[in-house]
Amino acid sequence: MEIKPILFGLIGLLTSAVHAAQSPLAPVLLTPNEWPLPAEQTMAYPLFADALLRARMAVESAQRDGIKVPYPTDPGGGPSHEQHKRNYRALYDAGLLYRISGERAYADYARDLLLAYAELYPPLGPHPAASGSAPGRLFWQSLNDAVWLVYAIQGYDAIRATLSLQQRQLLEAKLFRPMATFLSEGQPQTFGLIHNHATWASAAVGMTGYVLGETEFVERALKGLEKDGNSGFLRQLDLLFSTDGYYSEGPYYQRYALLPFVAFAQAIELNEPQRQIFAYRDGILLKAINTSIQLTYNGYFFPLNDAMPDKSLRTDELYQAVAIGYAQSQNPGLLSIARWQGHTVLTPEGLQLARDLAEGQQRPFPFASLLLRDGAKGDQGAVAVLRSGEQTLVAKNSGQGMGHGHFDKLSWLLYDNGQALVTDYGAARFLNIEAKNGGRYLPENDSWAKQSVAHNTLVVNQSSHFGGDWKLGETLAPEQLAFIDEPLTRVSTAEMKGAYPGVRFRRSLVQLEVADSDAPLVLDLLRVDGEQPAQYDLPLHYAGHLLDAGFPLQSHPTNRPVLGQANGYQHLWVDAIGQPGPNDSSLTWINGERFYTYRMLLPESAQLILAETGANDPNFNLRRQPVLIQRLNAVTDATFVSLLEPHGHYDPDAETVSASRSRIKGLRYTRQADADLITIEWLDGRTLVLALADDTDAGATHRIKHGATPLAWTGHMGRFETNGL
Amino acid sequence: MEIKPILFGLIGLLTSAVHAAQSPLAPVLLTPNEWPLPAEQTMAYPLFADALLRARMAVESAQRDGIKVPYPTDPGGGPSHEQHKRNYRALYDAGLLYRISGERAYADYARDLLLAYAELYPPLGPHPAASGSAPGRLFWQSLNDAVWLVYAIQGYDAIRATLSLQQRQLLEAKLFRPMATFLSEGQPQTFGLIHNHATWASAAVGMTGYVLGETEFVERALKGLEKDGNSGFLRQLDLLFSTDGYYSEGPYYQRYALLPFVAFAQAIELNEPQRQIFAYRDGILLKAINTSIQLTYNGYFFPLNDAMPDKSLRTDELYQAVAIGYAQSQNPGLLSIARWQGHTVLTPEGLQLARDLAEGQQRPFPFASLLLRDGAKGDQGAVAVLRSGEQTLVAKNSGQGMGHGHFDKLSWLLYDNGQALVTDYGAARFLNIEAKNGGRYLPENDSWAKQSVAHNTLVVNQSSHFGGDWKLGETLAPEQLAFIDEPLTRVSTAEMKGAYPGVRFRRSLVQLEVADSDAPLVLDLLRVDGEQPAQYDLPLHYAGHLLDAGFPLQSHPTNRPVLGQANGYQHLWVDAIGQPGPNDSSLTWINGERFYTYRMLLPESAQLILAETGANDPNFNLRRQPVLIQRLNAVTDATFVSLLEPHGHYDPDAETVSASRSRIKGLRYTRQADADLITIEWLDGRTLVLALADDTDAGATHRIKHGATPLAWTGHMGRFETNGL
Repeated sequence: MEIKPILFGLIGLLTSAVHAAQSPLAPVLLTPNEWPLPAEQTMAYPLFADALLRARMAVESAQRDGIKVPYPTDPGGGPSHEQHKRNYRALYDAGLLYRISGERAYADYARDLLLAYAELYPPLGPHPAASGSAPGRLFWQSLNDAVWLVYAIQGYDAIRATLSLQQRQLLEAKLFRPMATFLSEGQPQTFGLIHNHATWASAAVGMTGYVLGETEFVERALKGLEKDGNSGFLRQLDLLFSTDGYYSEGPYYQRYALLPFVAFAQAIELNEPQRQIFAYRDGILLKAINTSIQLTYNGYFFPLNDAMPDKSLRTDELYQAVAIGYAQSQNPGLLSIARWQGHTVLTPEGLQLARDLAEGQQRPFPFASLLLRDGAKGDQGAVAVLRSGEQTLVAKNSGQGMGHGHFDKLSWLLYDNGQALVTDYGAARFLNIEAKNGGRYLPENDSWAKQSVAHNTLVVNQSSHFGGDWKLGETLAPEQLAFIDEPLTRVSTAEMKGAYPGVRFRRSLVQLEVADSDAPLVLDLLRVDGEQPAQYDLPLHYAGHLLDAGFPLQSHPTNRPVLGQANGYQHLWVDAIGQPGPNDSSLTWINGERFYTYRMLLPESAQLILAETGANDPNFNLRRQPVLIQRLNAVTDATFVSLLEPHGHYDPDAETVSASRSRIKGLRYTRQADADLITIEWLDGRTLVLALADDTDAGATHRIKHGATPLAWTGHMGRFETNGL
Repeated sequence: MEIKPILFGLIGLLTSAVHAAQSPLAPVLLTPNEWPLPAEQTMAYPLFADALLRARMAVESAQRDGIKVPYPTDPGGGPSHEQHKRNYRALYDAGLLYRISGERAYADYARDLLLAYAELYPPLGPHPAASGSAPGRLFWQSLNDAVWLVYAIQGYDAIRATLSLQQRQLLEAKLFRPMATFLSEGQPQTFGLIHNHATWASAAVGMTGYVLGETEFVERALKGLEKDGNSGFLRQLDLLFSTDGYYSEGPYYQRYALLPFVAFAQAIELNEPQRQIFAYRDGILLKAINTSIQLTYNGYFFPLNDAMPDKSLRTDELYQAVAIGYAQSQNPGLLSIARWQGHTVLTPEGLQLARDLAEGQQRPFPFASLLLRDGAKGDQGAVAVLRSGEQTLVAKNSGQGMGHGHFDKLSWLLYDNGQALVTDYGAARFLNIEAKNGGRYLPENDSWAKQSVAHNTLVVNQSSHFGGDWKLGETLAPEQLAFIDEPLTRVSTAEMKGAYPGVRFRRSLVQLEVADSDAPLVLDLLRVDGEQPAQYDLPLHYAGHLLDAGFPLQSHPTNRPVLGQANGYQHLWVDAIGQPGPNDSSLTWINGERFYTYRMLLPESAQLILAETGANDPNFNLRRQPVLIQRLNAVTDATFVSLLEPHGHYDPDAETVSASRSRIKGLRYTRQADADLITIEWLDGRTLVLALADDTDAGATHRIKHGATPLAWTGHMGRFETNGL
C-alpha cells in the first residue's frame, strides 16, 4: 500500500477544496492545511468559540504546571495515571490550538511534552501496577497506552511542521514507532482480538502509520498482524457492530468503542478516501453513531452490562462522533444532540456543526421505538426500545456481550417522567477512584452486578444464567420473536432457551397507551417451561420510596436475614416476606412526582420478598437499593403476569396530590387455546383485554372466545376495549 | 373601629392614584379599582403574562370539570380534601382573572362555586376524619378551613360587585359569617394561640371582616377574641418572629406562616394605612421575608425541625411574599429570587415585579453569613449561617420551636458544591399521600425524626434532649456565645445547659478558608462538661457513598444488629463498629463530583459506629440513610474534635479524578490555659493552628505558648499559619 496524497475537504466551508500535493510535513489527520483560521471565524459560533476557550484555558493551565511526565507507578485514578491522562489531552489540545491559532507557544509546549515522553518511554517495562493479561507501559493496562497514542499522534501530526528533522526523528524513533510496535506485535494477544481494546490499538497503530508514512503500521491496523483480514479494524467493523449498529458489549462500551472507530475512520477517509470507509458495510459507522444516541434516556446511556450509570452523551467520544456523524450525514437531529452536549470539538467538523447550530438548523433528534438486532449477522437476539412520550422501555434480549456482559437474558428497564424507574445496577465500580480497588471493577461486580438476581429477569434455583459462565453465554442468545410498534400498543416478545438446562422462558413486554392516563401502562408476561420442579424468582429492581404493599407482610424489623448464600443472593437483606392474596397483589411507590403501582398475579403458594442490597458488603461497595422478588417454589411450568401502572401527581411546590392510589380494580389472566389473555379492569368500569398469541406470525389470524365474547385478531397481539379510548 | 375609605396605590404604574370614595362593592383586598387592565399591559412582562396564562388554564380546566363541592370525608390527600383545595385556588384565581380581564365568565364560575359552598357549609359538624384538637368543617383540621377562607374571601372580594344583593346576603350569611365565626369564637383554643394556625385564622377572620365591613371580625383578628391584645395578629407579630425575623418553628413553617402574615398585612395596609403595619415592630414583616430567603440553599429551605426537605422558594407563600416585599422595599435582590421562582402573582405587586424584572433591574440576592437570633426578645439562642461561595454551614442553636421543634440543640448542617452533605432528616412525613398515615406526620416523626440521635448533636445515654419533652425544651434555650464573620474564618460558638440534667456542652463550628482548596474546611469542636460518667454519642448524618474508613472495622455483613431500643436508636442498623487508632481517624465519602474526608480525634477506648436508618420500620416509612456515630463510654467530661475536608474532583464525563485522597496529614488538639488549640497539618508541610478562647469577649487578649511558639490574639478566635496563604 502507498500513502496517497492527502485529500481533504473542509466540509461545508471549503467543500471544493482538494489539495493534491501537500508538503510532506502537512497534517494528515484532523486539521486541514488551510488552518490557522482567522480569529473572527473561530469566535463566530458559540459552541466552537466555547470549546476553543476551554481548550486554551486547559492547555494554559497545563503550561503553567510545567512538563510533568512522571514514572508510571499508579493504577487507575492514581496521580501518575491521571497525569499521563492530562498529558495526552494537553498534547491533543495544544496541537489543535496551534493549528487553529498559529500560536507557536502551543506547538512548543507539545514539543517539550513529547520530548519528555521520548526520554521516559524507551526503558519502560510492564507497568508495576498491572493486573490482568494486558499490562501497559505508561498505564496499568495497555488499553490506556493505546488511548494515549491515539490522542498524542494527533497532537504530533498537528505540530510536526514546527519541529526540526532531528526532533522528528527522535520522537518517531524513541516514542511513536516503539509504541506502535508494542501495541501491535508487542501484544498480539490483544491486538488480534475482536474487541474494543483491539480497536483502540488498531486506531493508535494505524493513525501512527499515516503520520509516520509507515505502510506496515496501517496495514496491520486495518487487517491485523498477519494482514490476512482475520483481525484488525475492518474485521472489527464486520463483527463488533450488529447489522443495526449495536455493539455487543452494550451502550457504555459502545460509546467508549466509538471514538477509535470514528477517529480512525476519519483518518482513513482523509488519507485513503478511495476506501470509502463511511460507506463500508452499508454505512455501519453512521448507524453505530445513531444507535449510540438511541440507547439513551435524557442524555444518559442505558446502563446495560458493565456500565457506569452516570455516563451521558456529554463525553469526548460522543463530541467527536456527533461532529463526524453530522459532517457525513447532515442529520439535523445531531445538532440538537450537540446543543444538549453543550460542547464540540476543535476540528473542521466541529466548526461546521457549531456554525449550523448557530444558524438554527437543528431539529429534534428522532428518538424512536426501535429494534436493534445484536450480532454481526443480526441473529444474536436484540435490544428492543419502546418509546412513548416521556416513557422508554428497554427489553434486553441481546446476546451475552463478552466479558463485560451480564447474566440478564430478557431483562428490562423502564424510564418514566424523567426518572429511571425499573433499573439495572450497571457496574459495581467507582471509576478511577483509588480507594475503591484502584478504580477498577470491584469484586462485587462479579458477586452482584453481573448476577441474574441483580436484574429484572428469571432466576432458577438461585443460580445465574449459564451458571455464571459468560463464555457459555456467548454460545446461546435469546430469540426476538416479535416487535410491534403500533400507535397505542408496542410489544417486544422474545424467548430464551438454555440459560438454564431444560428451561425455556418467553417474555412479552407491552407498552399500552390508555385513555385518561398520563403515561402508558407496562404489561409483563413471562412464561416458563421447565423439565423438573424448581424455584423460580422474578426480581423487580424498582426505584422510589415504597408507599404501600397491598398484601400481608411478615417483617423483619429487628433482624434482617440474608436471602441466600451465593450468586448475588448473599448481598440481599430481607426486609419482609409477603403472601399474595387470592386476587392480584400490588406494590405502590413514589418516584419524583409520580406514583407507580406494580400489580402481580400469583398463586397463593407464592412468596413476595422485599429486600435491599447491602448484605455481605463490609467495604460499602454497593449502592443500597430495594428489590421486589416474586418467588414460586417447586414448580415446573409457570406464568408471571405483572402490570406496572404510572398514576397521579405529587407536587411538592403546591403541596397537592392527585390519584396517589391505583385506578385499576384488578388484573386477570387466562390461557386459551394458543394464546394468553390478560384483562385489565379499571375502577371506572373500563376494561381492556390484551391477547398474545403464541404464534408471532404477523399474518396469522386468531379466533377465540373470551367468556361469551368472541375475539378475533391478526398477528401476535390483539387489543380489545370496552368504554375505552 | 371604622372601615375607612379604601386607599390604594397601584404601585409603580399608578403611584399617584388615590381613590377616596369607592363604591361599597369595590374590592377592598388585592385588586385595585382601576382594573381590568388593557390586554397589552397584562401581556407585556413575561412573568406576569405567564402567571396569567397558567391561571387561565387552571381555571378553565376547573370550569370544564364543573362545580364539584363534595361532602367532606377524607383526611389530607384524599379526594374530597384535594377537591376543596383545588376549589379555593380556583375561587381565588377566578376572582383575580375577572378583575384583570373583566371577563364575566370567571366571576360567574366563582359565584356558582361559592353558592355551592353556601349550601354545603351550614349543616357541617366536625370533620369525620378529624384527629387532634382542632377539627375543621371542610377539612380534617381547622387550619385548612382557615386557609380556604383566606383564599375564598379574596375571590369573593374580587367578584362581589357582579352579584345581586340577594346572592351577597346569602353568601355572607350562610358561608363567610359562619366560617369567620367558627374560626374565631368557634375554636377559641386555636384562635387564641400564638402559633401559625392562629395566624391563618386571624387572617381569614380579619380579611373577611374587611370585606363584610364587619369591624368585630377585624378587631378579633388584630387583638384576639377578648380584644385585649393578648392574642391576635399584632401579638403574633410581636411574639412569633424574633427580632431578626426568624420564626421559632423553623424555615419550613416560617415559609408557611408567611402567607397569612403578608396577605393580612397587605389587607390592613389597603384598608387601614394609618396602622403602618409594614413599619410595625421595626419592619418585622420585611425582615421575616428576607430571613425566609436567607434560610435556603440553592432555593431549598434548610429542613430544620418538622420540614419537608423538598420544599423550595417555588411556593405560593413565597410568590406572594416576594411580590409584597418588593413592593414595600424595592430590594432588587428580590427580583433575582422571582426569576429563580419563575412565577409571580396576579396582583399589582406581581405586575410591578414582573415589569422591573423585564426591565433588567434585578441584582443578585445578597445571601450572606448572618446570625438570626431566636425568640421575641432575641434571647432564645440563634441560627447561625456561615457562607463561603458554594458552601453554607448552618448552626442550629435556636430555641425548641414549639411542637414542631426537634431535640437538636447545637446541631449543624452543611451544604457544599450544590449538595446537602451533613444533613437533617427533616420530618418523617409523606405530605398529603393518603397511603402514608393519611398524609399526616408519621409515627416515625416522633420515634425518629425528632429524636436527638437523628441530628448532628450530642446524645447522652441514648436519650433525647429534655427527655423528649418539647414543653420542657421551651424553657431552656441555647446561648449563642460568639459569631465571627471574617474574610478567611467564620465561627459560631454556642452553649447548651440543661438539655440533659447536669450536662453542659459548648460547640464551636468554624468555616476555614485555606489556600489551594476548592472549598473551606469545617472544624467542629464540641466540649462536654458532665457531673457523672455517661455515654456520649456524636452522630454525623453524612450524605454520599462511603469510599474509605481509615480505621479498622468490625463488620456485621450477614446480621446487622439494631443499635438500641428507644429514642431513635431502635431505627438504626449497625453496619460496622470501628476502633479509632492512636492518631486521628477518618472517613472518606463522595457526593456529586467532590470528595469529603471527615477526621476525628478520639481516645482509643472510643467506638465509631457506622449505621443506617431502616430498622424497626415495617411500613417502610423512613428514607434509608447512613450515619457515623462517635461514641465515648463512661466519661464525665469530653471533647470531640472533628474536621471535614472537601477535596478533589470526580468528573464522570471526562472520567477523570483528582485528589480523591485527603490532603491533610493530621489533626492535633491541645488544651492550654483557657483555650482550645487545634493544629491542622497538611501533607505538603503547611500547618494551621486555630485557637478558641473560652472567653468569647471580642476585646479580650490572649497569650499562650504552643510548644515553643508564643501565640497571641484578641477576641474569641486566633488563627496562625505557616507556609500558608
